[in-house]
Amino acid sequence: MTTVSIFGKGNMGQAIGKNFEAAGNNVSYIQSDSPKSELGDIVILAVPYPAIRSIIEGYKEALSGKIIIDITNPVNFDTFDELVVPADSSAAAQIATLLPDAKVVKGFNTTFGATLETKKVANQQQTTVLLAGDNQDAKSTIGNALEGSGLAVIDAGSLKRARELEAMGFLQISLAAAEKISWTGGFGVFR
Amino acid sequence: MTTVSIFGKGNMGQAIGKNFEAAGNNVSYIQSDSPKSELGDIVILAVPYPAIRSIIEGYKEALSGKIIIDITNPVNFDTFDELVVPADSSAAAQIATLLPDAKVVKGFNTTFGATLETKKVANQQQTTVLLAGDNQDAKSTIGNALEGSGLAVIDAGSLKRARELEAMGFLQISLAAAEKISWTGGFGVFR
Repeated sequence: MTTVSIFGKGNMGQAIGKNFEAAGNNVSYIQSDSPKSELGDIVILAVPYPAIRSIIEGYKEALSGKIIIDITNPVNFDTFDELVVPADSSAAAQIATLLPDAKVVKGFNTTFGATLETKKVANQQQTTVLLAGDNQDAKSTIGNALEGSGLAVIDAGSLKRARELEAMGFLQISLAAAEKISWTGGFGVFR
Repeated sequence: MTTVSIFGKGNMGQAIGKNFEAAGNNVSYIQSDSPKSELGDIVILAVPYPAIRSIIEGYKEALSGKIIIDITNPVNFDTFDELVVPADSSAAAQIATLLPDAKVVKGFNTTFGATLETKKVANQQQTTVLLAGDNQDAKSTIGNALEGSGLAVIDAGSLKRARELEAMGFLQISLAAAEKISWTGGFGVFR
């Protein structure tokens, strides 16, 4: 059993939390009015990207050494035409720079909330969580913790691949926003 | 019926050509030793990215005004860890800059050759061609020309989205190269 702390209890936070719970882990949520508490082995940042900096400032010491999953898609919601992070970087890489002692892993940003709830994309293809991070043990710990959740997990490589995962997440959101796909559909992964 | 000229007759060029032929279009291939000839309504650049510049130099006038489909994934094959185009741009955008009078569309870079042959990803989900380009008529012409091919086509937005399509193509290639997925699988699109 792994302890999991999730910042944010929106659609994504809850859908992710249910999966970790289904796999037998101990999940707790931290909201903006929560009292300061210990953090679990895995910490999930399930808040919009602009909210992350204040979490890091408020929990900097507690986050040190933790496995941190960044699920954000740092879309510029004013233009809906680009990301707000540098084009050769990623939200996850920016977070890793702010938290050099943490093990930052990108994940859950290419899976719509509905597909985490049903464990299927478009009720057809098993939902796959793509992980990118430089710490192999951290990715293994996440993968092991999700065993039995009903989700598939694939190691997508180093933290540099977070750039590509975020591009894919942005593309998927823009397709759904344009009603080319539905929010229950999107990209399924086939091995 | 649309006339289609395909530069390159490798796996991708042939798989794409068969789809246009199956949909009733007139397809011809141009290889490096081909004599200069007229180009069709749709021109497909199905060569590795580094080979495109010499095609543009050799056919600059003939390409003017044409619908051009860029299928490349401009991966840095030395490092296999980044793309060779600027991070905020794309191969398609670079080509559009070199050919300002052409209607450049990104497409077929997120579909492995095998999935174009079988029209299915992992023999399960219909293969979808994602198109990005600034000229709506060009994208419609391509979509109409592929009707009856067995492929699905989705307009993924403006040419700026080629950045995201190329990131997704790179990610898919890197997953297959790492044997996390097979070359007959990859990303399926679910509406």
